[in-house]
Amino acid sequence: MLVKERLFTPGPVPLPPQVIKALGQQIIHHRTPEFTKIFKETKEKLKKLLKTERNVLVFASSGTGSMEASVLNFFSKGDKVLIINAGKFGQRWYELAKTFGLNPINYEIEWGKTYNKDRVKEIIENNKDLKGILVQHSETSTTTYHDVKYLGDLAKSLEDCIVVVDGITSVGVYEVYPERLGVDVLITGSQKALMLPPGLSILYYSEKAEKRLDISDLPKYYFDVKKESKKQSEGQTAYTPAINLIIALNESLSLILDEGLEELAKRHEIMAKATREAVKSLGLKLLSESPANSATGVYSPDGINADDLRKTLLKIGFRVAGGQDHLKGKIFRIAHMGYFDFMDVLQIISGLELALNKLGYKVDLGKGVKTAQEIIFSNI
Amino acid sequence: MLVKERLFTPGPVPLPPQVIKALGQQIIHHRTPEFTKIFKETKEKLKKLLKTERNVLVFASSGTGSMEASVLNFFSKGDKVLIINAGKFGQRWYELAKTFGLNPINYEIEWGKTYNKDRVKEIIENNKDLKGILVQHSETSTTTYHDVKYLGDLAKSLEDCIVVVDGITSVGVYEVYPERLGVDVLITGSQKALMLPPGLSILYYSEKAEKRLDISDLPKYYFDVKKESKKQSEGQTAYTPAINLIIALNESLSLILDEGLEELAKRHEIMAKATREAVKSLGLKLLSESPANSATGVYSPDGINADDLRKTLLKIGFRVAGGQDHLKGKIFRIAHMGYFDFMDVLQIISGLELALNKLGYKVDLGKGVKTAQEIIFSNI
Repeated sequence: MLVKERLFTPGPVPLPPQVIKALGQQIIHHRTPEFTKIFKETKEKLKKLLKTERNVLVFASSGTGSMEASVLNFFSKGDKVLIINAGKFGQRWYELAKTFGLNPINYEIEWGKTYNKDRVKEIIENNKDLKGILVQHSETSTTTYHDVKYLGDLAKSLEDCIVVVDGITSVGVYEVYPERLGVDVLITGSQKALMLPPGLSILYYSEKAEKRLDISDLPKYYFDVKKESKKQSEGQTAYTPAINLIIALNESLSLILDEGLEELAKRHEIMAKATREAVKSLGLKLLSESPANSATGVYSPDGINADDLRKTLLKIGFRVAGGQDHLKGKIFRIAHMGYFDFMDVLQIISGLELALNKLGYKVDLGKGVKTAQEIIFSNI
Repeated sequence: MLVKERLFTPGPVPLPPQVIKALGQQIIHHRTPEFTKIFKETKEKLKKLLKTERNVLVFASSGTGSMEASVLNFFSKGDKVLIINAGKFGQRWYELAKTFGLNPINYEIEWGKTYNKDRVKEIIENNKDLKGILVQHSETSTTTYHDVKYLGDLAKSLEDCIVVVDGITSVGVYEVYPERLGVDVLITGSQKALMLPPGLSILYYSEKAEKRLDISDLPKYYFDVKKESKKQSEGQTAYTPAINLIIALNESLSLILDEGLEELAKRHEIMAKATREAVKSLGLKLLSESPANSATGVYSPDGINADDLRKTLLKIGFRVAGGQDHLKGKIFRIAHMGYFDFMDVLQIISGLELALNKLGYKVDLGKGVKTAQEIIFSNI
């Protein structure tokens, strides 16, 4: 029987019809005034999204491309950096730092937890020569939120330390304004709360970070921020841009700005809270002690492999993500970022109840839905 | 905050992605072998849908066009016909019959009820010269199912009576095989369970009905079944066809045939049952005593205008239909035909619970969802 597949994965997320429409157009050439006009418009919207007057760059790459650009352009060989390594993407910062010859302090944190503030303070006090702190704002692999403002404040106490934030699953979920957070480099990707297919990454850098561009001795070509910045300030790109994705970004940013950044953050907060409370009311345990508003990681009940649960969910119409690395088979992750609304949350919870019962974990049908409905009720 | 609009109206219904994709193509010319190939393929699929070997016609019109064609081609001035008039669309049969000079017996039935079998038998016994019985298989305005097989059987007892069925909201919902049902003319439209935009109507006629084509004295041009039939048997149309809708119909029929007609009917039966039982468990009353599987009409609770309820539903993400004519403001109609699955039913019920509470009609949150889940559970 017909079953629709609904994406509830933390990237890619569903595309709004406006975005699909924008993508389904004939291609235009990028070395034209027509493209320049759209590109400039898009970049103005990106500035509004991040509440900045600075030139926010767009790369034709997935998010990891901009992570690499952050390392290559703002650091030099041997630079000591602190890595907040609390999951798969924290580990990616570490690997990038190692690959390009930085000197990383690898602060490994149990998956599902955020960093310890005292511990970070201590590291910083013992490493006054720290050149950077690299962190995820929302660690997608563990659905964990890290406080980046605290790190931004700490960094100010050092002589020359920048805070580099992977905002791949935080931009478009929270109000992420790097200049208020004390963040020097902020990157994000297209296929998360920006509601686009993968293929674009976005990079913001502060005035403080800009000074590094002339000092950095790491080899770069495709991800050369200085060159790209110059080109993009003229409404062009150094290399061929992902034309249709930029046109679609222009649309999705309109949707985001039309909703309003405060409203958008509130919506995500409510969706996340409803999801968390609903799964808890079904007796399930959250993966994260500091849960993010982008996605919710949940332990599968004892005796039920999370991947079996995911298969059952897929059979009835929901694609959710599993755990990565050592969490594989143990957890599943439900996204609620980007093109989701309250009714989507109710739907996945109603399906989760059915899937759990199907696999022999008895939950009262409707109980989780009721929990979520109660949270949503005062907000409709 | 972002709210998605979900169509739960009994036409148009949501389009499957495959259909949207088919529609979003460059137009091709219809007087080409390319179009003829697609058209012939589509018509073969229509035959499978209706389990017939006869030439099923496609018109560029909405469903009413094929209703008119049924009157114009298979009847003559003064022909006595019985109209099963149990709603807005039954009334349309009556108006068509009057407009074109037939002699209709207008059997008016209270909205929400089906015909009385003894009454129909009596009419037929008293009118042996009856040339036709015109009926809806599913009366969309009242979400009521009429047994057409019973009428088909009765018609056989008369010398020359054909049964003409409006299957606009039954084809693709039930297994509708005119030759098994004793139906002589069956019409349907594109924007219902065929999951297309409006603009196509479909007309089947039996061998018995075919004999009427040479006798009928009513004036016809655009809806000339004889002319159209000849053209369409050659893979062309008498007048310009709705090219992109036919290409999309080819896709949607593939979806339907791939699911399987039995499975499809079962899915609709379960969705309808889950919806009906869920709303009843919330204390609401169904409009129809003989509810159809295409859509469910529900009385709004005392003191709550159904149109206010609809507005509240729309505010949280659901567009449902209201009542027509004297039912306006009293009922609302939830569709579950075509591109809907079980999880859609759970979603609209969870939203309905919120909307009812919002308007001061207290229902236990999750209760209706639970009722629907229980019905769905054994079928997943």
